[in-house]
Amino acid sequence: MHPGPDRTTTADATGASDLPPVPSRLPAVEQRAVMPGGFRAGALAAGIKPSGRPDLGVVATTNRAAAVAAVFTRNQFAAAPIKVSRAHLNASELGGGGQFGWADGIVATSGSANAATGADGDADQAEICNALAALLNTEPERTLAMSTGVIGERLPVTRIKEGLAGLVPGLAATDADLEAVAAAIMTTDKRLKLATTKLELQGPDGRPRTVTVSGIAKGVGMIHPRMATLLSIVLTDAGVDPATLFALLSPIVQRTWNQLSVDGDTSTNDTVFLLASGEAGATVAVASHEAERLGDAIEAVARSLARQQAADGEGATTLITCQVSGAADDYDARAIARSVISSSLLKAAIHGRDPNWGRVASAAGNARLPDEQLLEAAGLHHTDAMPRAGRAPELDPDRLEIAIAGKLVFAGVPLPFDRAAVRAAMEAPEVLIRLDVGLGIGTGEAFGCDLTENYVIENAEYTT
Amino acid sequence: MHPGPDRTTTADATGASDLPPVPSRLPAVEQRAVMPGGFRAGALAAGIKPSGRPDLGVVATTNRAAAVAAVFTRNQFAAAPIKVSRAHLNASELGGGGQFGWADGIVATSGSANAATGADGDADQAEICNALAALLNTEPERTLAMSTGVIGERLPVTRIKEGLAGLVPGLAATDADLEAVAAAIMTTDKRLKLATTKLELQGPDGRPRTVTVSGIAKGVGMIHPRMATLLSIVLTDAGVDPATLFALLSPIVQRTWNQLSVDGDTSTNDTVFLLASGEAGATVAVASHEAERLGDAIEAVARSLARQQAADGEGATTLITCQVSGAADDYDARAIARSVISSSLLKAAIHGRDPNWGRVASAAGNARLPDEQLLEAAGLHHTDAMPRAGRAPELDPDRLEIAIAGKLVFAGVPLPFDRAAVRAAMEAPEVLIRLDVGLGIGTGEAFGCDLTENYVIENAEYTT
Repeated sequence: MHPGPDRTTTADATGASDLPPVPSRLPAVEQRAVMPGGFRAGALAAGIKPSGRPDLGVVATTNRAAAVAAVFTRNQFAAAPIKVSRAHLNASELGGGGQFGWADGIVATSGSANAATGADGDADQAEICNALAALLNTEPERTLAMSTGVIGERLPVTRIKEGLAGLVPGLAATDADLEAVAAAIMTTDKRLKLATTKLELQGPDGRPRTVTVSGIAKGVGMIHPRMATLLSIVLTDAGVDPATLFALLSPIVQRTWNQLSVDGDTSTNDTVFLLASGEAGATVAVASHEAERLGDAIEAVARSLARQQAADGEGATTLITCQVSGAADDYDARAIARSVISSSLLKAAIHGRDPNWGRVASAAGNARLPDEQLLEAAGLHHTDAMPRAGRAPELDPDRLEIAIAGKLVFAGVPLPFDRAAVRAAMEAPEVLIRLDVGLGIGTGEAFGCDLTENYVIENAEYTT
Repeated sequence: MHPGPDRTTTADATGASDLPPVPSRLPAVEQRAVMPGGFRAGALAAGIKPSGRPDLGVVATTNRAAAVAAVFTRNQFAAAPIKVSRAHLNASELGGGGQFGWADGIVATSGSANAATGADGDADQAEICNALAALLNTEPERTLAMSTGVIGERLPVTRIKEGLAGLVPGLAATDADLEAVAAAIMTTDKRLKLATTKLELQGPDGRPRTVTVSGIAKGVGMIHPRMATLLSIVLTDAGVDPATLFALLSPIVQRTWNQLSVDGDTSTNDTVFLLASGEAGATVAVASHEAERLGDAIEAVARSLARQQAADGEGATTLITCQVSGAADDYDARAIARSVISSSLLKAAIHGRDPNWGRVASAAGNARLPDEQLLEAAGLHHTDAMPRAGRAPELDPDRLEIAIAGKLVFAGVPLPFDRAAVRAAMEAPEVLIRLDVGLGIGTGEAFGCDLTENYVIENAEYTT
């Protein structure tokens, strides 16, 4: 019995879930890297990190430039790699406002964020992009950059250029090389973040082509909607023009990375690049059924990466997923879910396996829709279908239902429940918080992690 | 040398502060309770808290009803005491939207928040107010209520009514009795929060009268702008009509309690009551010079209470004050200050005595102005002088200056500084983060605390 997102919460006698998970339309993903056609990659230790671990990765095209869509942090202290990437995408003159265009290569570094480094930092980043362009035999405007690490330190440009010179000739179209880039962008991450799915799309001859969507990501701290601190590269061999690719990516980011919070801090370096090579021989037109299916595949990869990031949050032991149904619309549902997983008090309660539904209710009551700048960043503008930015979602405490780890604990009033049983269920590596607002058919979800002593310990001594 | 809030940051050879504190126009306060004329109070242990500690307090008038201004949480799960207090103020028919009116008594309880308790909780709270009104020989509409504690538990109404019956006949106009109410509303607070200032205002005969403003507060967790979780009662014996009193209180809350964050969670029970008895014989007219001076005294008390709350934040060891100058306007300055003290990463860094200015810069870059509902809650509406709600404050990374514990560490680019000396200065019980935006004359400040392992430990096991 898998009821839909409508009101389905009457406890049954079988002991089954009182408020089941919201069903997903997305395809399954595997947690591994698979190199799609048309790309090559590689990574090495260039000496940015004192530890000597890999810190330089490159993803490049094989035959022709790939279409690119990008989403960047809204932090006003945007780092140098973001400024240079925006400028390069702007140079494509496609009118994407620096959020889509064409590219032949991405240089990704970890160890230093190259943020708050002033004009010198911008010049450093341009020099690195110029070096990559020369090695790839392309224009600097066809290169992109992303970086992560300590804020306020200059990049070791000479070492990075030497690293690129050693790396680019050996770039290879293997899964292992894509995974190596995922490893090279890790900072405090404990685990690799990889996700892949495949689908069949129709080729120009009417016969099916297998299309791969594969993504890598990093980011476990300074993570919060607008958007989460992270670097992510998602590659596909579908053929998509840049504007269509951005139209696919933008709402996906709203439903995935912008629904992820580890610690409420939005970083200076957040970047998602989605590249489409066209090598699979299946071209997707704007607003087509095929575009919708490709979008679902990209969203499945993005959602998996976001969940892997939440699960690996700094100091975290538990992935917290909040799913909301019955909201007035999907915007309201996402706002409520995001507020719940962002609550420090709830995060601490989950850490203590405390089914503290009062903190869930309070966090739901604090929810606010995203501000206008976030909506604009996503290419969204106010319409009749778009609720007013910054308002509170519709919520009636008397109609709200809350379930923790599968057990209904509140339905307008507190319900008696077996606290020991719920605590035991909360020992799982993932705890599901389910809310039903009881007002409409809007659904949404968000991803976070518990707040632990280790989060504090890790972050009290980062630069020193 | 006390330079104003304009650009004054050139380091001098004397080793003096590179970026001095923003000067304050507010009078000094003492951290004690002083009962203003026209009020009486008392507290006892009614058995709401299992610990047997005091949990029931009453503040009442002596001769005639006091003018009241109130600010409540914007959490949609507003607790029963807030709903009943709003309704009672609305009954005054002064048109204050439930935020000002007249009152003869306040019943304050701790141990149970009476939030998310449905219609039963509302009825419980009404019954308690009715009992207080009978004991004070006034109308139920002339009573107010506030509560704090665990969400989702019913109040023990019979025990509270018995407590009131024992307490009200002995209410006394002493400082100790006002302090006793402060003790009775404590939950996880480790220290009493008290603040008093006095000023001279002109009486109707042209001769000066001494006016007292004295406040008590509780609240060390679930504290975040919009507004901080707290209960506070501020009393004065000045004579002020309710609408004027609210006009004074509303912007003060914007500059004090709405600039306070402990953990990013806005509670269901936040309440500030400001009562004016008129017993001092000095009446203050709207928009007068006297009203401005009384407002400064109230703000000084509110600011002191907010700072005491931040310093006593759950698990905290360090008060963090962020002062911003040189912003485009005061709204921008406050938004930047609030974002800085709300950053979990910065809070963890302060705990580790790590002068991690990159996290300050990043948090400043994430700042957003309050949403429309917060502005409306404060009685503020959009005008040409009011920046668009939800927008980012004006900020130019190249012009920003940051000083930590008195030392300039960033001025458009990272500056070399003596890290050991700054770390040593950060061992103080209060750490000042100073920013100068370099764009205008706007100033603002915000108050927070470090994030510690103990915050997590305290909050992982609260209900159980």
